[in-house]
Amino acid sequence: MSRVKVASFGMSIDGFSAGPRQSLEDPLGIGGTSLMTWLFPTRTFQQMHGDGGGEVGTDDDFAARGFVNVGAWILGRNMFGPVRGPWRDDSWKGWWGEAPPYHMPVFVLTHHARAPLVMQGGTTFHFVTEGIHAALDAAKKAAGNRDVRIGGGADTVRQYLQAGLVNEVHLALSPTLLGQGEALLAGIDLTALGFKCAEHVTSRRAMHVVLSK
Amino acid sequence: MSRVKVASFGMSIDGFSAGPRQSLEDPLGIGGTSLMTWLFPTRTFQQMHGDGGGEVGTDDDFAARGFVNVGAWILGRNMFGPVRGPWRDDSWKGWWGEAPPYHMPVFVLTHHARAPLVMQGGTTFHFVTEGIHAALDAAKKAAGNRDVRIGGGADTVRQYLQAGLVNEVHLALSPTLLGQGEALLAGIDLTALGFKCAEHVTSRRAMHVVLSK
Repeated sequence: MSRVKVASFGMSIDGFSAGPRQSLEDPLGIGGTSLMTWLFPTRTFQQMHGDGGGEVGTDDDFAARGFVNVGAWILGRNMFGPVRGPWRDDSWKGWWGEAPPYHMPVFVLTHHARAPLVMQGGTTFHFVTEGIHAALDAAKKAAGNRDVRIGGGADTVRQYLQAGLVNEVHLALSPTLLGQGEALLAGIDLTALGFKCAEHVTSRRAMHVVLSK
Repeated sequence: MSRVKVASFGMSIDGFSAGPRQSLEDPLGIGGTSLMTWLFPTRTFQQMHGDGGGEVGTDDDFAARGFVNVGAWILGRNMFGPVRGPWRDDSWKGWWGEAPPYHMPVFVLTHHARAPLVMQGGTTFHFVTEGIHAALDAAKKAAGNRDVRIGGGADTVRQYLQAGLVNEVHLALSPTLLGQGEALLAGIDLTALGFKCAEHVTSRRAMHVVLSK
């Protein structure tokens, strides 16, 4: 059955999934890349963004698992880029260059309509202005029997969690402090939503937990 | 030099250090004992509260370290017991029976004066009505060159953190969800307070992090 999942989502000791003051230079906010220290060296990440080498092991197992059986993605607008307000033109095409690592339909939440953007390698960005439920409906339709992955950012994940629409969350707790930023779980009662910690595995760089219902 | 530290403090994935509805039956609130799953089997805990056996290893190393060089403790009133409002009599003597595991002076924060309580094994509970700074002054004086350990609960730890009075915090992140309860770090900017994650070690049951400045 098709599931809705969040995967490889970093969180600091103090509960932040992005640091303060996100910008073109700091897409994850000040200090936010420290949430991804576990991910960067993995084979999965290096094969997508690096030199094709990379480490295998626990961290890579989780990174790879996040892509298994995924048929569509949903991204918040800030995850797609730093542009705010109406789209001035089509020049911003995401953080990932001409060939983004999705290779499938990606639904971007925005308040401002924009024509679909067909990228190299099979990725098409669809811009959804009717809210999170509409985006999920479209993503599920596109995914068929496969899963929908909510890619982030933190606010988008929070909205889908609060609406009770997520089946599984893989968090990578990183041994870092951000002090400020986007508190991923603040005010969300995961127990009341039916989640349990179904799995936990620790690596040298992070504690991986899988919350599911 | 004498330091002020928090040690062996449990925190859930969703950031709670106690569950909701603390009571005589649930001193750590509903679900709160799941924060201590890592601690109960350790030799340190078993020698204090159990049969004297217990496991050694990472979890025990951290449990034991929390007691090294400690010369005085500070506890919030809820950590001392479930009695609220004025002390009706001297019948409540803490959660730990006639011989508490402190064996040294323990300063209990309260709004209601009470004479010191001398227990078996070297523990004396002193009740401090003048606030957290007065309690710390008294505890430092009692500890001499040794450290002061803030025992909890969460609200007491938060107060000392926010006042900038803590040098070191050892948290044990447990793979559990509480949903509600006392959010240990919410609204506290540990980065601005000067903390860094100085150490992180994972065991099968928890991720231990040491935050220090």
